[in-house]
Amino acid sequence: MTVSITVGIVGYGNLGRGAELALRQCPDMKLAGIFTRRDPARVQPALSADRVYQMDTLADFQDKIDVLLLCGGSKSDLPEQGPELAKMFSIVDSFDTHARIPEYFDAVDRAARSGGRTAIISVGWDPGLFSINRLLGEAILPEGTTHTFWGKGVSQGHSDAVRRVPGVRGAVQYTIPVAEAIEAVRSGALPRLSTREKHRRECYVVLNPGADAAEVEQAIKKMPDYFADYDTTVHFISEDELRREHGAMPHGGFVIRSGRTGEGNRQTVEYALKLDSNPEFTASVLVAYARAASRLHRMGDFGAKTAFDIAPGLLSPKSAADLRRELL
Amino acid sequence: MTVSITVGIVGYGNLGRGAELALRQCPDMKLAGIFTRRDPARVQPALSADRVYQMDTLADFQDKIDVLLLCGGSKSDLPEQGPELAKMFSIVDSFDTHARIPEYFDAVDRAARSGGRTAIISVGWDPGLFSINRLLGEAILPEGTTHTFWGKGVSQGHSDAVRRVPGVRGAVQYTIPVAEAIEAVRSGALPRLSTREKHRRECYVVLNPGADAAEVEQAIKKMPDYFADYDTTVHFISEDELRREHGAMPHGGFVIRSGRTGEGNRQTVEYALKLDSNPEFTASVLVAYARAASRLHRMGDFGAKTAFDIAPGLLSPKSAADLRRELL
Repeated sequence: MTVSITVGIVGYGNLGRGAELALRQCPDMKLAGIFTRRDPARVQPALSADRVYQMDTLADFQDKIDVLLLCGGSKSDLPEQGPELAKMFSIVDSFDTHARIPEYFDAVDRAARSGGRTAIISVGWDPGLFSINRLLGEAILPEGTTHTFWGKGVSQGHSDAVRRVPGVRGAVQYTIPVAEAIEAVRSGALPRLSTREKHRRECYVVLNPGADAAEVEQAIKKMPDYFADYDTTVHFISEDELRREHGAMPHGGFVIRSGRTGEGNRQTVEYALKLDSNPEFTASVLVAYARAASRLHRMGDFGAKTAFDIAPGLLSPKSAADLRRELL
Repeated sequence: MTVSITVGIVGYGNLGRGAELALRQCPDMKLAGIFTRRDPARVQPALSADRVYQMDTLADFQDKIDVLLLCGGSKSDLPEQGPELAKMFSIVDSFDTHARIPEYFDAVDRAARSGGRTAIISVGWDPGLFSINRLLGEAILPEGTTHTFWGKGVSQGHSDAVRRVPGVRGAVQYTIPVAEAIEAVRSGALPRLSTREKHRRECYVVLNPGADAAEVEQAIKKMPDYFADYDTTVHFISEDELRREHGAMPHGGFVIRSGRTGEGNRQTVEYALKLDSNPEFTASVLVAYARAASRLHRMGDFGAKTAFDIAPGLLSPKSAADLRRELL
């Protein structure tokens, strides 16, 4: 396989690092460089041969990069970078603020069309692969219910919320799907489940010296939106234990569609992920979608797209004929 | 939702009947009629309002039907009907003889292009949804292995093979995935599994009067391709029990991709189906793909396609904007 797609990585946190490592597994792709707002000399890439550049130099790479992977956060990085960079580059990102996807899509779409570029937004596993399975589930089994479960995994948003509680020095929050709820859905019984019945939350917290454990625990458990609607357990641990036992970023989850066909036959479709590293898996999805972005751009299919708009074959390095022969 | 797609069903066995029932769940689709090679007066549709016509009259419906669902068998019906009907109609079928898909694709492609029609072949769950998951698995996790398990479910081909053994009056064969093998794959251990380690086979057999049970059992167990490479159990039962206990058509299975990213992090993706009725589920998939066939035809995108060529959004009755808002 010859190298055919040149990729740039924008932002070098866990996701950017995951993308760098994922590209190494793809002989049809090549990394042009990692772009950062930090001092490039102080960014250490995972692979020593990879080059790091100042973000400001991106414009010089317009003819040398087929697709940019935007690896920043959805809160402040992407809303600014997506619409700006989609004017100059085909992009792929993992924008995951569900409620703001429509407006983000529109902004990126306008930019990409104006620049004749292809932008695939909100890929990863949720939004992304889970979204595809929610769509397929209801399209194929219109009479039924879909449940999405997340975890067991670290939620960055909830961990951050715990860290903001006065008296907390450090914390990690795990979202845990309730096994009984998964079994009930899997059985095809079409249960109605409350928020509390589907997930529970577990927090590992390091206190500041002198902080009151009972007060901190109550402040967490009563926090609206984040914890009040869930059964939450709070464990107080040492800083050492937090670092040693809770430094990994596992995650996963399930999308289960259960429906009825004919005279009441039960049909159940389940999609499940078990991930040792959430950012590395998400990055691997971004890299696969870079193939699609590059191909669509070459075909002149410009504008913003989501996982819903991308035919599966565009993600594979294999030809359509090979795919039919080997994988259909 | 207004009715926008008019569908015809060709062939009225279990799959055709499943399609008729699936269409009832889709307010955006309407059945124009069921077409059969039998005497229409002797075909009883599941829903009394549905009309049955002689196959010869199909040409009269060219302007009245958007998509034909071909519900015949892959052995002799589809190889003939697919290329013939794709000249006159957009079609969707479930051609599932994996080894012959490339030649079938080419024949249907030529026909559909010559007639300006869109043909989506080989959809259902395998080939179809399972194929999509095999493709996504290796595109996203290039370093890993994919295992497909089938069952527990009735295999028509294997049941037929048992019925051809001299002395057998009736039979049903179940394909059963080996639980230990599924667990080994699920764990991310990347095991190498032989045919025998992945599935076992269970046969429920009714003997002809005077037939020798031991001889029949050996003839089944030693049958090359079908049984010789598997651990096979043969149960002899009465005709009454066969009818009473083994008349349903459950099926299902798993596609599991297990791979490594970064410095050896395990990532596992699992897609699983548990189906009370195999033909009704397969028919529901065909009906969803009829939406895609109709839309692609309206866009002027002619020729043969497979599940690999179809963007997920084309399967849903919802608009792209609604899908982004509700399901992404």
